[in-house]
Amino acid sequence: MIPRSFFLQLIDKEFGEFEEFLKQSTDDEIRQFLDELHPADIADIVERLDEQDRGRIMALLSEERAAEVLPLIEEYHKPEVLDAIPETTLTKIVLHMDSDDVTDILEDLPKEEAEEILDSLPQKESDEVRQLMSYPPDTAGGLMQTELVAVSPDATLGQAIHLIREKYSKVGDIINLYVVNEQGLLIGMVPLRTLILEDAGKKVSEVMERDVISALVDMDQEQVAELFRKYDFISLPVVDQQGKLLGRILVDDIVDVIQEEASEDMYRLAGVDKEEHVDDTPLRSIRLRLPWLSFNLVTAIAAATVVSFFQGTIQKVVALAVFMPIVAGMGGNAGTQSLTVITRGIALGELTFSNAKRVLLKELIGGLTNGIVLGGLMALLAYLYKGNPMLGVVLGLAMICNMFMAALAGTSIPLILKWARVDPALASGVIVTTFTDVTGFFCFLGLATLFLHYLT
Amino acid sequence: MIPRSFFLQLIDKEFGEFEEFLKQSTDDEIRQFLDELHPADIADIVERLDEQDRGRIMALLSEERAAEVLPLIEEYHKPEVLDAIPETTLTKIVLHMDSDDVTDILEDLPKEEAEEILDSLPQKESDEVRQLMSYPPDTAGGLMQTELVAVSPDATLGQAIHLIREKYSKVGDIINLYVVNEQGLLIGMVPLRTLILEDAGKKVSEVMERDVISALVDMDQEQVAELFRKYDFISLPVVDQQGKLLGRILVDDIVDVIQEEASEDMYRLAGVDKEEHVDDTPLRSIRLRLPWLSFNLVTAIAAATVVSFFQGTIQKVVALAVFMPIVAGMGGNAGTQSLTVITRGIALGELTFSNAKRVLLKELIGGLTNGIVLGGLMALLAYLYKGNPMLGVVLGLAMICNMFMAALAGTSIPLILKWARVDPALASGVIVTTFTDVTGFFCFLGLATLFLHYLT
Repeated sequence: MIPRSFFLQLIDKEFGEFEEFLKQSTDDEIRQFLDELHPADIADIVERLDEQDRGRIMALLSEERAAEVLPLIEEYHKPEVLDAIPETTLTKIVLHMDSDDVTDILEDLPKEEAEEILDSLPQKESDEVRQLMSYPPDTAGGLMQTELVAVSPDATLGQAIHLIREKYSKVGDIINLYVVNEQGLLIGMVPLRTLILEDAGKKVSEVMERDVISALVDMDQEQVAELFRKYDFISLPVVDQQGKLLGRILVDDIVDVIQEEASEDMYRLAGVDKEEHVDDTPLRSIRLRLPWLSFNLVTAIAAATVVSFFQGTIQKVVALAVFMPIVAGMGGNAGTQSLTVITRGIALGELTFSNAKRVLLKELIGGLTNGIVLGGLMALLAYLYKGNPMLGVVLGLAMICNMFMAALAGTSIPLILKWARVDPALASGVIVTTFTDVTGFFCFLGLATLFLHYLT
Repeated sequence: MIPRSFFLQLIDKEFGEFEEFLKQSTDDEIRQFLDELHPADIADIVERLDEQDRGRIMALLSEERAAEVLPLIEEYHKPEVLDAIPETTLTKIVLHMDSDDVTDILEDLPKEEAEEILDSLPQKESDEVRQLMSYPPDTAGGLMQTELVAVSPDATLGQAIHLIREKYSKVGDIINLYVVNEQGLLIGMVPLRTLILEDAGKKVSEVMERDVISALVDMDQEQVAELFRKYDFISLPVVDQQGKLLGRILVDDIVDVIQEEASEDMYRLAGVDKEEHVDDTPLRSIRLRLPWLSFNLVTAIAAATVVSFFQGTIQKVVALAVFMPIVAGMGGNAGTQSLTVITRGIALGELTFSNAKRVLLKELIGGLTNGIVLGGLMALLAYLYKGNPMLGVVLGLAMICNMFMAALAGTSIPLILKWARVDPALASGVIVTTFTDVTGFFCFLGLATLFLHYLT
């Protein structure tokens, strides 16, 4: 059988074999096989199977086990996996799930079905889940779970240990105990290890860490991720404006947030909708990309319009049409470089308004220098190719001008968007390359028109 | 004073005020202020200060405190911060650090200085660090630390608790105890909470989890990150080929790896060197970008060469030069969309060879459809603008052809690179846009030459 600790690597190669195994095995054999697997591996398998096999596997899992597997299904595959589970079974499965996972599942279900499942939950749980569902999914409130262990500052560590033993079946990963006062305000924290290191007779208030860093419930998930990254947290309490403890966020959900945010930035730079997925149907992919490509068409027409102003010049010096792609292309690439470095710098919090001026200056010096080096080189090549020194001069100057403007646009557009509190990554490559196309054609053909006398 | 839990947000605005405070305060006042801060906040401050203030702050920190702050300095700023610390002080600071952090620091120092510090460490520690330094930094071995708590399967939980109390000052974040047999092979794991939940008289072997997932020491950091992401680990043991326990990796280092890998992919797509940093000097930035831009120049010349073959045609129908940027631009954008979705899909493990055929088909259908819609629209516009139906037909056909080829290139180039075990993100935008430029110009101008009779 497949060695469990390397399942991650093997699943790719041997998935066909596994489907064969499914076909030839009895339910009991499959159940036995699934028992050996980590829930994450089962989730991986379920995502890949066809509708029928998926239903069969989910039906073979116990409710507890299904409650572990479901939250690990990729967001994109969740609807189809949920489809494979009868509602009555789902109602029992969610009883074994953490509140944040229940929320995620319900948000993927048709409203009516979600309501029915909520109604079937015990009152306290259904209230909690309803509350969680009221927070936007990309905020601390949308990420947190309500399962946690809270103790009074007056309790002894022995009492705290007792509480953990009681609560353990409900609260899976206990990393810290949170200390709350009578008003429910978060006033301290006790790491689990303290319960092992310190004497059981001591009071919580004697050993607790004060000054606990927490996330406000409406904090954006990107900022929450930044808190985790900066302070190396494993879990983080979430409070409301008054400081009342509402829930906690665990690092594994943050790892997903970081991946998601990085994908989003990358997608935006390339003009891809963040909802798009590599596994989409052709129709969905077309529907998501067409608006953006249509926008591109408008910007491309803008660039073409600039060229159309200079048709007379091109008619006289056709060689200009040959060099046009070089001026535009080099500007586009230089602009994309600046844009990417700046956008990523903003996303990682390394570029702020305090160092923005220095960074802009650096980019401009870089754009100008690279323009001079490559524009100079290209001027020489054009001269050697066409034998006209002025053509070289015009081409070189246009490249210098365009690479400078590329640095300016690639740096300032995302900074301006940040200042206007719009996502800087919206300054996608298309905006910057349109800018460099327009500037490039205008500089190159404009200069050529100005010096037309020397070119013909 | 600045409320500590929101320092992250405030530091940006009030950094100027802080520098003022530094100037006007005595060492004692500053020391008192620093005592209130989280090491990560001190690291943030130190990164931003000028050389003199940086030296002053580092000198005011106790060795224990400096040992907490140093590993939190961003990689990029480490050399300059290390410069501010006298070697004799550094020798004492590293004594308080985890082995992986010592390794990171020593790798940033001049070889000679690193050797001197190694020699000053106790034999056992210096051996461990030398061993860690022998692993490539982007592998499990390069990420792991040797500080961990290992117990024998025959020990009781009470003995394990005793061991933790002994080791705690050395091993900061104890998440799990690792169970090793007499040969040092990893045979199980006991989560910290088990020590609280279970009776102290039980044996480790009775309560331990078997089938522990571990990373091989030479596993690539991207795969290690994927293990953390998939299995929601907080820590992961590292073993050698024989299964001998060598160290452990904590999730906070993985969060950094995920950010780093995402940046790398984004940078490669845009043709930016992964070593580049938003805060680089102009000279360094120029040196890093110029080679890539020079490569771009070669590819741009390739595209221009295609145009040069058709100078005769352009001479006769100058309007072609006007529409050239539209054909090339739309192909470039469509190609970049495909490329980005495919590259990211590969990086996240969502695109594998098993679904590659389906994804390629989807991209090709999408490219063709988008080409027909936008090419058709553009054909109509060109006809209305220039009054020549054949010009519209040629433009439309060229756009359909180029957007289809863009989907083909954007999808197959990264897949072929993956198959050849090269990083798929190396199929940077430049390669794909060069491809679409060349194809676009060739289709458009080629068709125009073919139907030249109808265009003039």
